[in-house]
Amino acid sequence: MKSMNETETDAATLAADLAKAARRASHALARASGAVKNDALKRLAAALREGQAALIAENLRDLEAAESGGMGAANLDRLKLTPARIEAMAHGVEEIIALKDPVGAIESLDIRPNGLQVGRMRIPLGVICIIYESRPNVTIDAGALCIKSGNAPILKGGKEAFHTNLALVALMRASLEGAGLPPDCVQAVATADREVMNALIRRDQEIDLVIPRGGEGLIRHVTANATVPVIQHYKGVCHVYVHADADVAMAAEITLNAKVQRPGVCNALETLLVHREVAPAFFAKAGPLLEAAGVELRGDQRTRALWPGQARRTEAATEDDWSAEYLDLVLAVRVVDDFEMAIAHILRYGSGHTEAIVTKDYETSLRFLREVPSSCVLVNASTRFNDGFELGLGAEIGISTSKLHAYGPMGLEELTTRKFIVLGHGQVRT
Amino acid sequence: MKSMNETETDAATLAADLAKAARRASHALARASGAVKNDALKRLAAALREGQAALIAENLRDLEAAESGGMGAANLDRLKLTPARIEAMAHGVEEIIALKDPVGAIESLDIRPNGLQVGRMRIPLGVICIIYESRPNVTIDAGALCIKSGNAPILKGGKEAFHTNLALVALMRASLEGAGLPPDCVQAVATADREVMNALIRRDQEIDLVIPRGGEGLIRHVTANATVPVIQHYKGVCHVYVHADADVAMAAEITLNAKVQRPGVCNALETLLVHREVAPAFFAKAGPLLEAAGVELRGDQRTRALWPGQARRTEAATEDDWSAEYLDLVLAVRVVDDFEMAIAHILRYGSGHTEAIVTKDYETSLRFLREVPSSCVLVNASTRFNDGFELGLGAEIGISTSKLHAYGPMGLEELTTRKFIVLGHGQVRT
Repeated sequence: MKSMNETETDAATLAADLAKAARRASHALARASGAVKNDALKRLAAALREGQAALIAENLRDLEAAESGGMGAANLDRLKLTPARIEAMAHGVEEIIALKDPVGAIESLDIRPNGLQVGRMRIPLGVICIIYESRPNVTIDAGALCIKSGNAPILKGGKEAFHTNLALVALMRASLEGAGLPPDCVQAVATADREVMNALIRRDQEIDLVIPRGGEGLIRHVTANATVPVIQHYKGVCHVYVHADADVAMAAEITLNAKVQRPGVCNALETLLVHREVAPAFFAKAGPLLEAAGVELRGDQRTRALWPGQARRTEAATEDDWSAEYLDLVLAVRVVDDFEMAIAHILRYGSGHTEAIVTKDYETSLRFLREVPSSCVLVNASTRFNDGFELGLGAEIGISTSKLHAYGPMGLEELTTRKFIVLGHGQVRT
Repeated sequence: MKSMNETETDAATLAADLAKAARRASHALARASGAVKNDALKRLAAALREGQAALIAENLRDLEAAESGGMGAANLDRLKLTPARIEAMAHGVEEIIALKDPVGAIESLDIRPNGLQVGRMRIPLGVICIIYESRPNVTIDAGALCIKSGNAPILKGGKEAFHTNLALVALMRASLEGAGLPPDCVQAVATADREVMNALIRRDQEIDLVIPRGGEGLIRHVTANATVPVIQHYKGVCHVYVHADADVAMAAEITLNAKVQRPGVCNALETLLVHREVAPAFFAKAGPLLEAAGVELRGDQRTRALWPGQARRTEAATEDDWSAEYLDLVLAVRVVDDFEMAIAHILRYGSGHTEAIVTKDYETSLRFLREVPSSCVLVNASTRFNDGFELGLGAEIGISTSKLHAYGPMGLEELTTRKFIVLGHGQVRT
């Protein structure tokens, strides 16, 4: 057995090798044309379909290990590859092929008084380390988004999907080679050793970004220990605020949709704020709909007094409920005195993810849009629209709740940066 | 005397107080109109002019302490406030007043098939911690840029400028109050205790960005220890590449300007790459100009053989010269075989700051613009143009060499982020 120091040295060496190989390969990928990158992705879609049986066999190794390790049914299902899921991955790659290549785009070229033309050109970030957990489709989604945007990913999946992920990455590497690109444009971390991850997130000379996708503990660990920049995808404590003048039928539909259409996701509604003037009419309309959908309620005192059937139907909300991300059919409800109190509640308890208002008033709608500093702010629409596809970005690599670089869904463009370009005719500075 | 633990606790408490006060104040500043923010800045410009004598008196306290502490003449000069320098600060504030307010701007509102209108609105980052060294004008420049962009700065200046910075921050706080904004929109770290900085850079719940401006040691320390996102301003190892077909007179002028116009700054030329075919003619033209300007040369073997007057005039370049940021009248020169070798040299030794090509060729110019991943890439122009004013951004808070969020000069817009806004008519997701 190796000593701790030897293990750490091995991990550091492996991380250095991965990072340096990714950096070298990233130069070729950054220069590749959209046609070459799409060729690699077309080969990948075909390889996924052709390799279905082999992928399922590798996945079975993971499933058997997970089952004998005592993994529960829900997680086993997340881990499982089926022909339909592999087809969905291939289809997802084709959707990414269809997206516009952001690399090389120049948004404008302004002219300066001295005749210099100054613009900004989109370029890849370079090397991106993505740390994620169980679902194997993230390997393909994230890998394909990185290839299309000219970035070389280092993919660190969950250990429970170890064989599946290696098989998927092998397909990506072969597809890259088939298109004339270095296979190291995509690499997997072929070990479950956590020290490798800890070493990778400090290799800021080669790695430009780390995206941890997973629980809050993982994200905090990476943030605390990385020297590479990190984009966080924290929780979504999303609000709907029903203003005094809201159309109560619209407000009820939006509330219901935001809470129950898919309660387990980060853009689902968690706390409902209702202006006191509209509360009786709104609760009369929304209460039965929410109860029929099986939603449990945690109300403040005024909510409990006004709720149809009154307090019997709602539990008393505690301070913890205002910052809870239930991800379940549970909803916190608070009656507020006015717009200011709604904003103050969101600023205090919100997670900066998604907030919606229902109102008919012009000034109120503009103030809400302006004053709520969340990644997505909606007027008269469900919080569930904060999603890369729904907002028109195409596939997304996640929803950032950190303000730096990207705020909200991260699509292809958010995986690039902009450099300044200057077209001169011999100008010098005086 | 306090024990180490007590000191650390005090530092942590002070950092928490500063960060929380900044967060609270930032909400008001984020909502303030451009007119209100400009009012605060106008009051600041007036206060700088009116407070000249008092500022110079406070500055004198720092100068006397620095002098008796043995500070050299050059650094004493950087620290010194004069009437002219105070007037320049006030004028700088007026230039920031004249810039367009980026906050609230919506770049486009696209329509989705379901009728939702989706756009992005610029909002302040929130709270920004700026860590810097000697020159007191940074206090006013950075503070005014933050106020204009709706961000609450926590300013941690060098201990040698302690009294000067406190006096300047007091003027900013009074100006904010005069305009009806909370004075905590600008705060100074009123201690030289390094532990306070160490605690601040881990308060990611309240602080959105830290910008360390100073030596590489400071930047690395902050990057290694922060949990708050960091934007780095590392060194500039800037290149000019003279292509085979370059106009040698233009290439010589650009080289001379990039090297000697202000050699001590980060966008000054450090390494010159010359295509072997043009090297004899170019060196014949540029050599005497550079030598007349007092530039010392570090050449590779081919450069030394071709240089007018030959090797006597150039020292042999070592491997270290290719990554040196001289910030002085010294220039590394290398003859390259072709465009590919120039790009490979820049990728290997460059710092991602600024690179220029001199060429007449269409394809070569486009390839250079596309393939060099530096923050500013120029064709037929001096590297000295990589500067916020010269590129049309107005005042800058620094030049970022990190790709995330902002790459190159950071002006007002780079101190903001974009949130998604969605205008609906009752849409829900199906």
